[in-house]
Amino acid sequence: MARIRLFIDHPLAPGQAVPLEAGQAHYLSGVMRLKPGDTIAVFNGRDGEWSARLESASKRGGLLAVGERTAPQMDPPDLWLIFAPIKKARTDFIVEKAAELGCARILPVQTDHTNSERIRQDRLQAHAVEAAEQCGGTFVPQVADLTPLARLLDGWDGGRRILWADESRAGPVATLQGLPPGPWAILIGPEGGFSAAERAALGRMAFVTPVSLGPRILRADTAAVAALTLWQATLGDWR
Amino acid sequence: MARIRLFIDHPLAPGQAVPLEAGQAHYLSGVMRLKPGDTIAVFNGRDGEWSARLESASKRGGLLAVGERTAPQMDPPDLWLIFAPIKKARTDFIVEKAAELGCARILPVQTDHTNSERIRQDRLQAHAVEAAEQCGGTFVPQVADLTPLARLLDGWDGGRRILWADESRAGPVATLQGLPPGPWAILIGPEGGFSAAERAALGRMAFVTPVSLGPRILRADTAAVAALTLWQATLGDWR
Repeated sequence: MARIRLFIDHPLAPGQAVPLEAGQAHYLSGVMRLKPGDTIAVFNGRDGEWSARLESASKRGGLLAVGERTAPQMDPPDLWLIFAPIKKARTDFIVEKAAELGCARILPVQTDHTNSERIRQDRLQAHAVEAAEQCGGTFVPQVADLTPLARLLDGWDGGRRILWADESRAGPVATLQGLPPGPWAILIGPEGGFSAAERAALGRMAFVTPVSLGPRILRADTAAVAALTLWQATLGDWR
Repeated sequence: MARIRLFIDHPLAPGQAVPLEAGQAHYLSGVMRLKPGDTIAVFNGRDGEWSARLESASKRGGLLAVGERTAPQMDPPDLWLIFAPIKKARTDFIVEKAAELGCARILPVQTDHTNSERIRQDRLQAHAVEAAEQCGGTFVPQVADLTPLARLLDGWDGGRRILWADESRAGPVATLQGLPPGPWAILIGPEGGFSAAERAALGRMAFVTPVSLGPRILRADTAAVAALTLWQATLGDWR
């Protein structure tokens, strides 16, 4: 865990020279005090993890030389997470946890009870990158821009089922065992839950399966982690 | 969720007069702007939830009059969480999530790779109270003082099994389905994992069951929520 891992959006192959941006070069030489010749681990989200030697680093940028592959690419299952952004810290947390637990795409949505008019997509994407860097991941889920839930559902491809963490269903957790495999999305509501109109719309959609997350009221961030865990353990790559 | 809920360590019964401390009185009248005659919900961790009318509030304290019971007491299953405190925000988070997900007791431990020499037990306990207040809970898990893991295990009653989230077991999650019911504790390691000596000691104990939490490395706070979720859904009161 102490090893330095850096996400680099650049092709990676043995001997490949990889330019560093000013911020990356500063992080490696100024913050982490690396010297030319020191090695780090790099990944680009698609080609696994590679060792890379620091060739040079200055204020304007730097250069890495890619060595050998140190871990295979590990993509998550075809699982998306749809959630309504809440307070900043909890929104950051949801993105971080989705990246850690194994999620392909993260879709923030505006709902009738969501206060957020906008999100900082770039900041949330950076959180997903950092989670992968720190937890040994080789994949970074894409964080989409904020979209109204109604518009997202209007254009939804029913081939991807939605597991709806329905906060009105306090009670026993139905096992996910009987659900079909394939592409899924988990849908987590905002604080205060979904509106009556949203609930009615979700109830009419054949590809939506409501589930309970136990007899207690969970905050949205807790519900996201719990639902991702149950899905991964039953239908995902934790099996 | 918008309703004001207050944890009060006082007997609750119809007509009961409950004195408010200065901080509670200030919160209700100064922060939440309640007036005498307004009602809130109160719970004491053992007698369910009750409605209560604000009789008076001043800088020195106040008084509530308990009305009728509005929800039954809901105790968690006999599940403890043992974890090694990490950075402040993530430690707070683990306590909050354990209270939300349903846990009877929270035991912070010092391990060979733990940096913390001390914790603020009172602050962590306040986080558990706040989680119950905000999530409609009627029970507050007790947060114990920091104890060395070795001492805790030395005096352990083997009648309570330990589910050890063993970070070295990256791989498929064994189902918890075959595990016996009864008292359990979940054990989550520190960043950097357990030491070789700790791992050997845990491996020798018949009441310890190691489990994997999937093929990815999870931060300690994520592992805590994931393990609590899987235990609750399989052996706990989410079934």
